[in-house]
Amino acid sequence: MMQTLNVSLGARTYPIHIGMGLLAKADLILPHLASKQVVIVTNTTVAPLYLEKVAQPLIEQGVNIVEIILPDGERYKNDETLNLIYDALIENRCERSVTLIALGGGVIGDLTGYAAATYLRGVAFIQIPTTLLSQVDSSVGGKTGINHPQGKNMIGAFYQPKLVLADINTLRTLPERELSAGMAEVIKYGLIRDAQFFEWLEANANAVMGLNEDETTYAVYRSCENKAEVVAADEREAGERALLNLGHTFGHAIENAMGYGVWLHGEAVAAGTMIAADLSKRLGWLEAQDVSRIEQLFEKVKLPTKAPVLGIEKYINLMGLDKKVQNGKIRLVLQQGIGKSVITSDYDVDQLKLTLSDK
Amino acid sequence: MMQTLNVSLGARTYPIHIGMGLLAKADLILPHLASKQVVIVTNTTVAPLYLEKVAQPLIEQGVNIVEIILPDGERYKNDETLNLIYDALIENRCERSVTLIALGGGVIGDLTGYAAATYLRGVAFIQIPTTLLSQVDSSVGGKTGINHPQGKNMIGAFYQPKLVLADINTLRTLPERELSAGMAEVIKYGLIRDAQFFEWLEANANAVMGLNEDETTYAVYRSCENKAEVVAADEREAGERALLNLGHTFGHAIENAMGYGVWLHGEAVAAGTMIAADLSKRLGWLEAQDVSRIEQLFEKVKLPTKAPVLGIEKYINLMGLDKKVQNGKIRLVLQQGIGKSVITSDYDVDQLKLTLSDK
Repeated sequence: MMQTLNVSLGARTYPIHIGMGLLAKADLILPHLASKQVVIVTNTTVAPLYLEKVAQPLIEQGVNIVEIILPDGERYKNDETLNLIYDALIENRCERSVTLIALGGGVIGDLTGYAAATYLRGVAFIQIPTTLLSQVDSSVGGKTGINHPQGKNMIGAFYQPKLVLADINTLRTLPERELSAGMAEVIKYGLIRDAQFFEWLEANANAVMGLNEDETTYAVYRSCENKAEVVAADEREAGERALLNLGHTFGHAIENAMGYGVWLHGEAVAAGTMIAADLSKRLGWLEAQDVSRIEQLFEKVKLPTKAPVLGIEKYINLMGLDKKVQNGKIRLVLQQGIGKSVITSDYDVDQLKLTLSDK
Repeated sequence: MMQTLNVSLGARTYPIHIGMGLLAKADLILPHLASKQVVIVTNTTVAPLYLEKVAQPLIEQGVNIVEIILPDGERYKNDETLNLIYDALIENRCERSVTLIALGGGVIGDLTGYAAATYLRGVAFIQIPTTLLSQVDSSVGGKTGINHPQGKNMIGAFYQPKLVLADINTLRTLPERELSAGMAEVIKYGLIRDAQFFEWLEANANAVMGLNEDETTYAVYRSCENKAEVVAADEREAGERALLNLGHTFGHAIENAMGYGVWLHGEAVAAGTMIAADLSKRLGWLEAQDVSRIEQLFEKVKLPTKAPVLGIEKYINLMGLDKKVQNGKIRLVLQQGIGKSVITSDYDVDQLKLTLSDK
């Protein structure tokens, strides 16, 4: 069973196919190629698992494949690694009609998408995300880019893929901790705008975590659908799109304080979401029982719900450095019930301090 | 007298103001700033001439200015210089509401525009081109980017400015040879699609070269207008836009063979245009007297009309390496009369060889 979602962006509209075993289906890829020249960018972890599965069926259809295998890890999401991609494209005399395929998680997607956005001022790219996080997050929104020594994602472009293949099978080789981390973003979509999906997750989280075909496909589909609706309304991140940052302002503070990679992004987002929920409750915007429902769902998918104790000063300081600051005021994404987040700087700072006082 | 041209690109429509003394007019710039944070990027040649003239009136209006002064020259249009811009933006904690101003010629415009396209996935930029070439060429079309050691403009983005200020006064400090080189592109617009403008240039070339206010403003205006019409029809360079490459395929071969910078780009384009005209005449598409008119106009603005003798093999080899090659076939921009260029690979190769036989 394959589900298809069309991300509607006018001339840049593209399909996301979700299902089992999709990455070997050359017939899904071929219609999107402008020429027979294809470059697959992946990393040393993913290559032995899936590279030949993607490449072989394409080669059989007469496609010329160049393979670029990068080192694995967020610390390689930099201009040095980007240059490895450019160098390979140029060495192989890739023309404007080339298509880049990003085969891997978020780092591979961001790097490859950015290389595609900027090589010869823009060539086609296709994403085959192999982690739950990248399937439900970077599949939609067109964010590409690299880190700068002074900050994450400082350099980048908004650039849309021609096609996304979210193959649920690839999640079988994903460490369980990363599957859980991806669930933080899935749950987020329910919390910010889709109460019905949140309820469905309460009932079906185990089946999704167990990678049951129907439930996992549906969870990825509905996550992408929610993100697509937000992004379509706000492609370049001026307003509503900031809802997607639920839990992220606190989460970035946690990631930063603990050292990047010690807490996975999704883990920090879950704990950050609980901080936002606690503050929302103190402001009288969220019932105590809804806070418990959020906590229980995170626990069900084995995500942390308690933020590390850093001290209130450190939290506020780290949040002040976050790039979501506008004119020195900290805007937060808070809850007004399950399925309804708001972006606001209109909250009582004393309540924020109370929330952070034991953290 | 200020002329204004609106480059129509839907939501990305922007004005080009053309006239004398515009760069000191803060009131033209202020409405386009999203915040009081402005970064002016320029080079060591332009800074002493014009940097304070731009900065001071803005500072008086309460704008915070960061100045980035880069080394001057095409050889600095690379990722190292680009990183100098990123570093300065980050050091000065520039947010998404920052505006970058490119003050200089094509290299500064390309570098600054590309930095703007990619810093925080895109911030605003304004161009103040200070050479004739950049006023009539890079003012329109949104091409930004850097060179790679293996090729020019290999890395880049299509990214539109918010505003262009073409200050005719800045041309007074331009070496005459560069003024002539800029005229090659001005004449090109007449040749490819605007016979009336070509005739006007035949009558007024001396006034333009003499920087008479009305004539020079008009020449820049009409050049930008022609380019804007071509680009509006073909923003991402799929078809008609290739007309703008008249003289460039041969010209690049000349630049490349002589060593970049030995012939200025416009000089190579003029000589390349004469090769295209000669081939067009041999194909029976252009009258001998029109070839003479083209030659005379180039001579009037002190541009070379004779290509260097490289040997036919070298020309064909160098042209084959040009990135305008599609599927191994060399497409050329040729003349079917003055004011009518065509993009074609439908010509007799023997005639091309005859044209190149004495070169």
